[in-house]
Amino acid sequence: MTTPNVQSMMTELGQAAREAGRRMAAASTAQKNQALRALAQAIESSTAALQQANQQDLQAARAAGHDEAFVDRLALSDKAIATMVAGLHQIASLADPVGEMSNLRVQPSGIQVGQMRVPLGVIGIIYESRPNVTIDAAALCLKSGNATVLRGGSEAFHSNQFLAGLIGQALVQAGLPQAGVQVVPTADRAAVGAMITMPQFIDVIVPRGGKSLVERITNEATVPVIKHLDGICHVYIDADACPQKAIRIADNAKTQRYAPCNTMETLLVDRSMAQQVLPDLCKIYQTKGVELRVCDQTRAVLAANGFKDQDLVTATEEDWRTEYLAPILSIRLVDGVDQAMDHIARYGSAHTDSIVTQNHSTAMRFLREVDSASVMINASTRFADGFEYGLGAEIGISTNKLHARGPVGLEGLTTLKWVVFGDGHIRS
Amino acid sequence: MTTPNVQSMMTELGQAAREAGRRMAAASTAQKNQALRALAQAIESSTAALQQANQQDLQAARAAGHDEAFVDRLALSDKAIATMVAGLHQIASLADPVGEMSNLRVQPSGIQVGQMRVPLGVIGIIYESRPNVTIDAAALCLKSGNATVLRGGSEAFHSNQFLAGLIGQALVQAGLPQAGVQVVPTADRAAVGAMITMPQFIDVIVPRGGKSLVERITNEATVPVIKHLDGICHVYIDADACPQKAIRIADNAKTQRYAPCNTMETLLVDRSMAQQVLPDLCKIYQTKGVELRVCDQTRAVLAANGFKDQDLVTATEEDWRTEYLAPILSIRLVDGVDQAMDHIARYGSAHTDSIVTQNHSTAMRFLREVDSASVMINASTRFADGFEYGLGAEIGISTNKLHARGPVGLEGLTTLKWVVFGDGHIRS
Repeated sequence: MTTPNVQSMMTELGQAAREAGRRMAAASTAQKNQALRALAQAIESSTAALQQANQQDLQAARAAGHDEAFVDRLALSDKAIATMVAGLHQIASLADPVGEMSNLRVQPSGIQVGQMRVPLGVIGIIYESRPNVTIDAAALCLKSGNATVLRGGSEAFHSNQFLAGLIGQALVQAGLPQAGVQVVPTADRAAVGAMITMPQFIDVIVPRGGKSLVERITNEATVPVIKHLDGICHVYIDADACPQKAIRIADNAKTQRYAPCNTMETLLVDRSMAQQVLPDLCKIYQTKGVELRVCDQTRAVLAANGFKDQDLVTATEEDWRTEYLAPILSIRLVDGVDQAMDHIARYGSAHTDSIVTQNHSTAMRFLREVDSASVMINASTRFADGFEYGLGAEIGISTNKLHARGPVGLEGLTTLKWVVFGDGHIRS
Repeated sequence: MTTPNVQSMMTELGQAAREAGRRMAAASTAQKNQALRALAQAIESSTAALQQANQQDLQAARAAGHDEAFVDRLALSDKAIATMVAGLHQIASLADPVGEMSNLRVQPSGIQVGQMRVPLGVIGIIYESRPNVTIDAAALCLKSGNATVLRGGSEAFHSNQFLAGLIGQALVQAGLPQAGVQVVPTADRAAVGAMITMPQFIDVIVPRGGKSLVERITNEATVPVIKHLDGICHVYIDADACPQKAIRIADNAKTQRYAPCNTMETLLVDRSMAQQVLPDLCKIYQTKGVELRVCDQTRAVLAANGFKDQDLVTATEEDWRTEYLAPILSIRLVDGVDQAMDHIARYGSAHTDSIVTQNHSTAMRFLREVDSASVMINASTRFADGFEYGLGAEIGISTNKLHARGPVGLEGLTTLKWVVFGDGHIRS
């Protein structure tokens, strides 16, 4: 339950955001870029004071017994600050999506009808410890013409409050409303409950954090949520795959980094390719310390090629449904692309799936029929990323089907309205 | 609460829909059109039996004491059937949105990245009495490659069950799964509660009906809802309006039809245009029997032009927030476009708003800054409609901000996924 004080504070904040949203939507590109660059400059010239505020959070985290990995994520080192500043300049240099008109066609009645890209309105971001998200998220929402309500982790409270002050000043310097970006001024958890149930003030919530945070918010929110849940990504090595490409891609998709959501968790291999691909590939995995959880047929192929039985774990039903985010890989042999697609439909999370094949027809079937946010041909799943896709920036990756799917850049923070040009036209 | 029997029936139906959805998504355009044309033919050749089933519903409605307007909406007259058949041929002739690829750009890494339009998956439609919606909605969902779960009003139960049989046969004839379109086979209201809380089986709910139905569904659904709520539409007659165009548009926007959601409910007039426009316009309204609810300044202008005091109602705060759907109009004088836009932002429902002006700068400001699903320049709000916008068909009008906004055609029943073409590319 929300305490009355927090509720009324959030209502006030929501009203201010809604009002500021209209002015943010009408802001010129030049104004928005000016605010972004002013903020970059303010961060640079206030580094000492910012790091002082950050120290308060770091001390509190250490006092609370958090480990060094946690404290590291919280720290605004010189390098972290330089990255934030570079990010602001990068976002300022992106094209402004707002106001773009498309498909303006003249209709039989004589009116001309098309669509205009416009901001969503007010965006609420709920995130965990890293205070750099305060700047990244604010910058993306600002550039896309939205007002923003930011609710960072309570561990970063002092850092976020300091950054909020700088953001407010930069907005005012550019002639924009200070309430264009608001940081919730309390660490009270009730503020989150209020935020996600104010559809009259907030148009969309973007939670950034672990799965439990995202699930809780999704279940309780009455405001639409652009969310990222599981990334159970597959690579399927087809009967017509080029073995060299298959090994390169399957290696990269698993081992380039273990923690990201677009890392492969299950490898599917057509039975006819197993002998050509699996022994070499699994040697690479073992060298890199990847634990292999395999189906019986995979075990048989590997055993016949000198792999030791005790080095292989038998995959369970549960493995096909697990996002390891770790040096663990499940491997399954399948009979062709249909069985591969059945497996992906049944166990996958519709995030990112890739086929390796030289067969055009098979590739195009996989591309069309696999219902995931990103579907790839002969490429590593690790490419599923806003920067790699050319979005210039990324507020997150969506596993929603409606609105924004996959990597979400500036466009995902906008929507399309219909525009009609007439000259006294009436309907008959 | 859902009774256990209905719950397990709906789970079974949901699973069948999810499985059928994969086959529907992979269906060729030719197959989908074949199913639509086969259905048209089946309806024509089964007219007598269809009307017999319909008679059962009509008799039940009369026995339950419903009025003739209600019975009329329920009736499948020869004309209603001909319209359904024509609609099927029309939807068969539309371009297939599924599989369209766009923006395929080569990225610095060498991969080519773009987007592909794909079905949403499974669409649930919940509607009230008219049984023709069964065919219209099924056809649009089928053409856009989705599986569909239809839940019509219990009053049309026999008609809908008969139509369901014809749809199933047409699907099978075209080699598509019979479960591609399912009509909920019970009039039990618990089925609706189950439908709107099965995100694992249904991707989006489209409620078609009165505001109370839509609000109830929106509040209780855990599946995303493409919804239509209020249509409090405005025409603003600017200081630089052409008076002839203003009168023509404001007349048409109110009186062409009173009940539709895109009919004007509030007329805003710049003070400097009131004398030139209001007396002639209000004479038209009075001739047509439109009740006028006016602000004090409007009353003064009309009184000075011979209107009788007792013919004018004083508008209250409540009037600005009311969707009359009737021959009633509220009128308010404002000071320029800013005050007009403030009024629209405060009282409007973000559905459809139009400005009448010859001033380009004012027109473009209104177009950019009014945050409604449809924003118009010098055109009647009555144009806000899928057919008038060239969509070829319409499943409804959305007042959502995310995903589909305004008139929703086939595209609104699809989404975009990312597609990546590589040739052995890995991330470095």
